[in-house]
Amino acid sequence: MTQVRNLEEKTIASETIFEGRVVRLQIDRVELPDGGTSTREIVKHPGAVSVLAVTEENKLVMVRQFRKPLEKTILEIPAGKLEAGENPADCAMRELEEETGYRAEKIEHVVSFYTSPGFADEYLHIYRANGLSKGEARLDQDEFVELVELTLDECLERIAAGEICDAKTVAAVYLWQNQVLRGRSV
Amino acid sequence: MTQVRNLEEKTIASETIFEGRVVRLQIDRVELPDGGTSTREIVKHPGAVSVLAVTEENKLVMVRQFRKPLEKTILEIPAGKLEAGENPADCAMRELEEETGYRAEKIEHVVSFYTSPGFADEYLHIYRANGLSKGEARLDQDEFVELVELTLDECLERIAAGEICDAKTVAAVYLWQNQVLRGRSV
Repeated sequence: MTQVRNLEEKTIASETIFEGRVVRLQIDRVELPDGGTSTREIVKHPGAVSVLAVTEENKLVMVRQFRKPLEKTILEIPAGKLEAGENPADCAMRELEEETGYRAEKIEHVVSFYTSPGFADEYLHIYRANGLSKGEARLDQDEFVELVELTLDECLERIAAGEICDAKTVAAVYLWQNQVLRGRSV
Repeated sequence: MTQVRNLEEKTIASETIFEGRVVRLQIDRVELPDGGTSTREIVKHPGAVSVLAVTEENKLVMVRQFRKPLEKTILEIPAGKLEAGENPADCAMRELEEETGYRAEKIEHVVSFYTSPGFADEYLHIYRANGLSKGEARLDQDEFVELVELTLDECLERIAAGEICDAKTVAAVYLWQNQVLRGRSV
């Protein structure tokens, strides 16, 4: 169906500008498909997981969290960065429990996507948590989050109001809405 | 409903590490809610728009494009970076036409989100394009993309196969699916 024209950009040179705790910034000089050259600014990221967890009361488990890049506190589904070599499903299970106190009996992969393919390689997995039971949250030392639980209608209102405003959470809410519309349990 | 505990992180110092054509990287030293300190690696981005455009044949207008950060060619809805001071709706209209040749009679805002709130401030708007008519694509000099049109079922299959694999496109397809399930035209 798609024509398989080669749209590839070959790396001529690559320079690491910064290597941090979370991201690495590199600048690649590339050869374009027409033989011209350009540069690409690339942020390397270890990847992340997030969890679509719906309680028995049909509420989405979320966290309120300050996000320094945005200089504001927003509502998101529980999420966390992958550690080197970590299994994403284990990471999802761990982050859900650490941030919210909810334990899942079962966790299953739903969808994965690159958050910003134009400048970053962050690959984010969404897992669905089933069979929730509530315990205590255990946060990392520099992590400050608050548990919030919202119905689907409340989530859709918060999206419209711009209070739920990050890619993974918007995608997870739409996915949940889809499953509700199709009459499937989550 | 939510407790309004202050989760804010105050900036103690901010250093710009890199200023590029697309992104700026800065490292902020922050004071945490408990008085401790930490650092935050922050990528500043001008923001972007993308377009959910469905043809009269009920196919989603997409582009095949090589993404250097991922080292692969992927399928996405048409999108582009905002230029300084540019109106997002105008940008959406322009990018759709430049990348695909489709002109929209009307463009309306659907949803906006931060793509990676943990490390970047990129804010992405999705617009819905209505009243499409087909002309010729006019690409930027270092832009190489190919038009692809897919039905909703084909999009869902491509998501499952990981071939549609970026946040904005996954969110747009779920949104389209929702509208179809609710019996609303797009």
